Amino acid sequence: MKLSARNQIQGKIVKVTKGQTTANVRVDIGGGNTVTSSITNDAVDELALTVGDTVTVIVKASDVMIGK
Amino acid sequence: MKLSARNQIQGKIVKVTKGQTTANVRVDIGGGNTVTSSITNDAVDELALTVGDTVTVIVKASDVMIGK
Amino acid sequence: MKLSARNQIQGKIVKVTKGQTTANVRVDIGGGNTVTSSITNDAVDELALTVGDTVTVIVKASDVMIGK
Amino acid sequence: MKLSARNQIQGKIVKVTKGQTTANVRVDIGGGNTVTSSITNDAVDELALTVGDTVTVIVKASDVMIGK
Amino acid sequence: MKLSARNQIQGKIVKVTKGQTTANVRVDIGGGNTVTSSITNDAVDELALTVGDTVTVIVKASDVMIGK
Amino acid sequence: MKLSARNQIQGKIVKVTKGQTTANVRVDIGGGNTVTSSITNDAVDELALTVGDTVTVIVKASDVMIGK
Repeated sequence: MKLSARNQIQGKIVKVTKGQTTANVRVDIGGGNTVTSSITNDAVDELALTVGDTVTVIVKASDVMIGK
Repeated sequence: MKLSARNQIQGKIVKVTKGQTTANVRVDIGGGNTVTSSITNDAVDELALTVGDTVTVIVKASDVMIGK
Repeated sequence: MKLSARNQIQGKIVKVTKGQTTANVRVDIGGGNTVTSSITNDAVDELALTVGDTVTVIVKASDVMIGK
Repeated sequence: MKLSARNQIQGKIVKVTKGQTTANVRVDIGGGNTVTSSITNDAVDELALTVGDTVTVIVKASDVMIGK
Repeated sequence: MKLSARNQIQGKIVKVTKGQTTANVRVDIGGGNTVTSSITNDAVDELALTVGDTVTVIVKASDVMIGK
Repeated sequence: MKLSARNQIQGKIVKVTKGQTTANVRVDIGGGNTVTSSITNDAVDELALTVGDTVTVIVKASDVMIGK
């Protein structure tokens, strides 16, 4: 399946922090940059997200702001 | 001003496409990755966004999905 | 690739309206329900979205509100 | 009050999971599809969301992606 | 219908700018503050949004950032 | 840094509720209006958000709905 989302960047999970319903997942995308994602615990469990996994971070273009 | 947004990555604008109300701005964040942002034309004008500008792309953690 | 997004529903495209930068795509998900998606023209072109296509509409749980 | 949101689908709550600040609410929208919503605990309390309630799931068109 | 969205603020429309698919609607919420909303042209037409209308701007808590 | 986000409103924090991963921050923006923001605990810690702080609430125009 190809996605309409304009931003799909590969990286490696470096941290998974689960709360009671929501988890924060930190992904190293290279070049000294990390991306943090807040998703449901259910998603973490279903995808079995674990430190070291190669994953894709996905962001819709309308969710990206610019600062200058 | 410091922002709560977890994801703030520096890059260089490589393309600005304005529509009638909405513009797409493409930013090269290095490491072979580009990020596309859809923002209002008004924002493009107010920040005078131009190809070659150094900018920061900003994404709230709750807007980041993970694919694996 | 499996997605963290909690909401992934199959349907058939019934309308594609392209603007200058942003397009609206309407998808019939069955049961008398349609879902409208606003995405970039670039995404419509890249995925070659056309009326009649079978597609998946994808929504992150944090983007869903409840009315009662 | 009429809403600008393009996507408003009726369903029945099948599960409510509260965390410390954020809750996940699952809604059966018929046709074999369920939709999960992540909202604040405060919203769950204020609307008294309970399994079996008839509710409307609401999603802005700009928050819908397409996969093909 | 009561909404889960934590932010619902009344105001008066001061400007409507329609593009080909997306419109910008500016709302004066008092206290010297205006809020801009980007919605589909279809929504503007269906709600017949016009300068001078009393409306409610609605924002999900997960879409609000903090700067300090 | 100037932001593309169309909505930036000053206010004073009146409540901070931290969960395990996600916090709710309530901000009084004057005129009898408060705005609630759901952000990561990490953001609350990094910005040292405390009741009484003067802050800016920031919302992208594409995240604002209209009700009428």
